[in-house]
Amino acid sequence: MSRVIFNQIPSEVPSVILAAPRIARHFRAPPRLVIPFSPKLAPPHERLALLSRHFSSQPPTQLTASPDRNWKSASRNTPQIVTDQRRTLGAQTSPLQKQIEMAEPAPNGAATASQQPPHPAILIPGPVEFSDEVLQSMSHYSESHVGQPFVNVFGDVLAQLRKLFQTTNPKSQPIVISGSGTLGWDQVAANVTEPGDEALVLHTGYFADSFADCFETYGVKATQLKAPIGDRPQLDAVEKALKEKKYKVITITHTDTSTGVLSEIEAVAKLVRKVSPDTLIIIDGVCSVGCEEIRFDDWDLDVVLSASQKAIGCPAGLSILMVSGRAIEAFEKRTHPPGSYFASWKNWLPILRNYEAKKPSYFATPSPQLIHALHTSLNQILSIPLQDRFKRHKEVSQHVKKTVESWGLKQLATKPENQASGMTAIWLPDGLKPTDVLPHVLKKGVVFAGGLHKECATKYVRFGHMGVSVMDGKKDDIERALDALKEGLQAAGWKQQ
Amino acid sequence: MSRVIFNQIPSEVPSVILAAPRIARHFRAPPRLVIPFSPKLAPPHERLALLSRHFSSQPPTQLTASPDRNWKSASRNTPQIVTDQRRTLGAQTSPLQKQIEMAEPAPNGAATASQQPPHPAILIPGPVEFSDEVLQSMSHYSESHVGQPFVNVFGDVLAQLRKLFQTTNPKSQPIVISGSGTLGWDQVAANVTEPGDEALVLHTGYFADSFADCFETYGVKATQLKAPIGDRPQLDAVEKALKEKKYKVITITHTDTSTGVLSEIEAVAKLVRKVSPDTLIIIDGVCSVGCEEIRFDDWDLDVVLSASQKAIGCPAGLSILMVSGRAIEAFEKRTHPPGSYFASWKNWLPILRNYEAKKPSYFATPSPQLIHALHTSLNQILSIPLQDRFKRHKEVSQHVKKTVESWGLKQLATKPENQASGMTAIWLPDGLKPTDVLPHVLKKGVVFAGGLHKECATKYVRFGHMGVSVMDGKKDDIERALDALKEGLQAAGWKQQ
Repeated sequence: MSRVIFNQIPSEVPSVILAAPRIARHFRAPPRLVIPFSPKLAPPHERLALLSRHFSSQPPTQLTASPDRNWKSASRNTPQIVTDQRRTLGAQTSPLQKQIEMAEPAPNGAATASQQPPHPAILIPGPVEFSDEVLQSMSHYSESHVGQPFVNVFGDVLAQLRKLFQTTNPKSQPIVISGSGTLGWDQVAANVTEPGDEALVLHTGYFADSFADCFETYGVKATQLKAPIGDRPQLDAVEKALKEKKYKVITITHTDTSTGVLSEIEAVAKLVRKVSPDTLIIIDGVCSVGCEEIRFDDWDLDVVLSASQKAIGCPAGLSILMVSGRAIEAFEKRTHPPGSYFASWKNWLPILRNYEAKKPSYFATPSPQLIHALHTSLNQILSIPLQDRFKRHKEVSQHVKKTVESWGLKQLATKPENQASGMTAIWLPDGLKPTDVLPHVLKKGVVFAGGLHKECATKYVRFGHMGVSVMDGKKDDIERALDALKEGLQAAGWKQQ
Repeated sequence: MSRVIFNQIPSEVPSVILAAPRIARHFRAPPRLVIPFSPKLAPPHERLALLSRHFSSQPPTQLTASPDRNWKSASRNTPQIVTDQRRTLGAQTSPLQKQIEMAEPAPNGAATASQQPPHPAILIPGPVEFSDEVLQSMSHYSESHVGQPFVNVFGDVLAQLRKLFQTTNPKSQPIVISGSGTLGWDQVAANVTEPGDEALVLHTGYFADSFADCFETYGVKATQLKAPIGDRPQLDAVEKALKEKKYKVITITHTDTSTGVLSEIEAVAKLVRKVSPDTLIIIDGVCSVGCEEIRFDDWDLDVVLSASQKAIGCPAGLSILMVSGRAIEAFEKRTHPPGSYFASWKNWLPILRNYEAKKPSYFATPSPQLIHALHTSLNQILSIPLQDRFKRHKEVSQHVKKTVESWGLKQLATKPENQASGMTAIWLPDGLKPTDVLPHVLKKGVVFAGGLHKECATKYVRFGHMGVSVMDGKKDDIERALDALKEGLQAAGWKQQ
C-alpha cells in the first residue's frame, strides 16, 4: 500500500528526490546567460503579508490587519489547534502552509526553484508554466463554497484584481466565473450590448473574428476594421470608422494570440473618448493581463476581459473581468434582458459584490480550488511592483525577439511598437512547416505552439514567454527554448544565413 | 528558504507528519460502527489498470492495450527517462505517480486513508470531500491543451463518462466544458430548444425555478408542474400535462438539492415515450450522477446534465453532460442559430468528437488540471461495479435517514420512494433555525448546509452523503456527522422526545 503524502515537508530529502535533478537534466541545457532582474522589493514584512495571506486563517475582519499580525501567526513553529470557533471553519494551517507562510519570497517573486516532476517546458501563449505554490493551492482540501474561509479568500481575490487592473474607482467591478476566456466575450455581448447594437471590432488576428462571431450570436452587428497580417488598425482608420456610425462598443484585442500583435490601448481609448465619447471600450486582455501594462482607471476603459492560464499564472478554468461603472450602467439600462443565463450579470453582480464584502452568496458553484490557486498567483504577482513585472516581461521579450532576428528570422508583428511582450510569433524559414520543426523542439524538452491565423497557420510558430518562466530567475526556460528552437530548425534542415 | 516538495514520497516519515494524527483527532470522535461494504471487485490487474491509467504515459494507441501492458509499465522501480519521442510529450511518471501506479486500490475503491491536512468534513450536497488522489491530480504540472498527452487524457475521460452514464450507443455524446452545473441548463436551453418552444418543467424544489428562468432567458416558454414541498409531481399529472400541449422538452430534476426529493426518472421517461414520444427528456442530474442509478440507453434519455463537484467526486469547475443522438438531431435541425456562443454545441461538438478520437482540437481552452482530476475520480468510480456504488450510497443514506427518524426528526422528502440517496434534507425541531444549530455542528468538525427552498429555507438543514465520505470504509465522516448533528441540536436547546 502506498502512502500519499499531502502538504508535508520531509525533514530529510529522500533519495528519490535527489534523483530528480538527474532526470531533469535530460531537459536542461548547460547553464547560460541569466537575464538580470532586480525589482524594487516591498519591505520584507509587507511581502510576507502578501504571500502568507492565502494561508492565513484569520477571520474576515483581520484580513486587513497589520503585517505584524500575520508575522506573529507565521512565527509559530509547531502546528496548533486553536479552539476559537472561527479557526475551526476550515482554515487550519497545514505544516506545508506554515512553511510557506514563514518563507521569504525570492527576490524575483517566485519562492523556490521548481520541485515539479520533470516535464517539457510549456512555452506556448497559454497555458503557461505555473509556480509550485500555485499548483499546490490547486489541491486545497474541500470547502463549502459559501463557508466563511472560502468566502474570505474569494473576496480577497476580487480585491487583488483591482490592484492588478490598476483601478481604485469603487464603481469598477471585478468578476471571476468558472469558464474560459471565451466566456468573457459572452459576458460582454450578452450584458453590455443588446440585439440591434453595433460593435466595432479592431482586427489584429483570429480572436477578432471569434469575438465578432460571439456578438452576432447575441444579435449584435459586428463591423471588423482589419489590418494586414502582423499590423494593427491605425488611429486615423479607427477615427474614420467611429465617425461613420454610432457604435455601442469598440473592442480591441490587446495581444492577439494568433499573431503576437500588440494593440495600443491607451491611444485608441483616448481617441474614442474624443470622437465617440459614449462608445464603451472593451479590451480582450486574455494574453496581456499580467504581462502588459493596463491602467483601467487612467485609460478610462470599460471592460477588460481575461483568463487565468496566461500571464496571470493560474491554471485554466476561470473567466476574469474588470468592468467599469459606465459598463454596469449600460447593463442596467438595457431594454432587453441579458442574452445568457450562466453569463448574466443580473445573476452574478449581486453575488460578486457579496463575496467581495465577505458575505456568503450563491448563484452557481464557484471552484474553490481554482480560486485558491488564483489567490496564490495574485499574491505572487502583487509581491513586487507591477511596473517591474511588466518591465521584466518586456526585457525577456526583447531578448527573444532580438535573438531570433539575429538568426535571420522575422516575426509576424512587423514593427517594434506592435510586438507583444508575452509572446513572439515567428515566421518559419521558407519551405518549413510547424510539423517539421516542433517535434524536434519537443525532443529538447520544450513545447511551442504552431500557427493559428487561418491565412498562414502552417507558416509560423508561436513562443509564449509569460509568468514564472519569465519572472523566476532560477528558471532557464527561455534560454533553453531559444536553443531548442535553433536546434529544431537545424534538425529540420534549416541553415542559418 | 523553504523547500516545497511536490509529488514525492519521503523515505522516512518526518516528525511533522507524525504530528498530524494528533491534530486530526480534534475533529474525530472515537471509532464507531462501520457500515460494512464489500463490493464485487474486478480482478486485481484490471483494477490496477483502471487506477493507473491516469498516470500512464502510454501513447494513444496503447490506451486500450491489455492490463498486463500497464502492469509492466507500473512495475518499474526507478524513474527512467525514455528517449522515445512520444514519452517526452509531457507524460513522464513522477515518483509519486509511480507509487500510485503500483498501489493496489483499497477494496472500497479509495486508495488510502486521507493524508489531507485536518479540516472539517464537508458534508453538504456538494462540493463533497475529495480523495487524496483526485486532489493530487489537481496539481498536475502544466501541459498544452492541444498536446497529445492531455488530449489522450481528455479523450479517455469522455469514454469513461459513457460508462458512468451507462450508454454504449455511438450516437450518444459526452460533453465536458469549464463552467458549473448551471452551464448545463444554458446548453440545453440554447442548443436543444429554440425561441418559441415549450418546456415542461417538473418542479421538486429550487432548481426547477432556476431551470425555468434559464429557458425564459433563451425565449423558451417554461411551464412548471409543481408538487407540495417534499413531494414530486405524480405520473397522472405529468400525463395530463403532456396531453394538453406539445412540449419540445420535459425536464426532471433527479435529486433536487434544495429538498432532497428524488424523481422517478425511469417511470416518467417511459410515460413520455408513450404519450408524447417526440418530447425530449432532459434530466438535471447535478446531484445524482455518480450516486443514483442512471441508465441513459435503457431509459431512453436525451440529456443528462451534471457537474463535477458532487457524487462524481472532482472539484467544482466542470459542466458535464451526456446527450443523445436524438437531442443532437434536434440541435442540427434548429431554424435559429444556438442562443449562446460559449455554450454552443456548434462550437463544441466537433471539438469533443476530436478529443474523444484523441485528436488535438481547439475552441476554448479546457482546464487540464480539472480534467486530470476528473480522470482520476472516474478511474476510482469505475474500479468497482457501478451497482455496488449505487447500493452503498443507498445503504448509507438509509442509515442516515433511519438515525434521524429515530430521534423524532422528519425529512422534507415525505415518502421513502422519493428520498434521494446522496443527501438528506431534515426539518429542524420547532423553533430552531439553521443558524442556531450549524455553528455547533461546525465546532464538532462537520459542515452541513442550511435550507435553500425559498418557502422554508430557515426551517431545515441539508446533509450531503456522496463520494469518498460514503465509499471509503476508512472514513468515519458519516457517523461523526450524525453525532455532530445530535450534539449540535442539543447544544441549541433541543431535547430528544
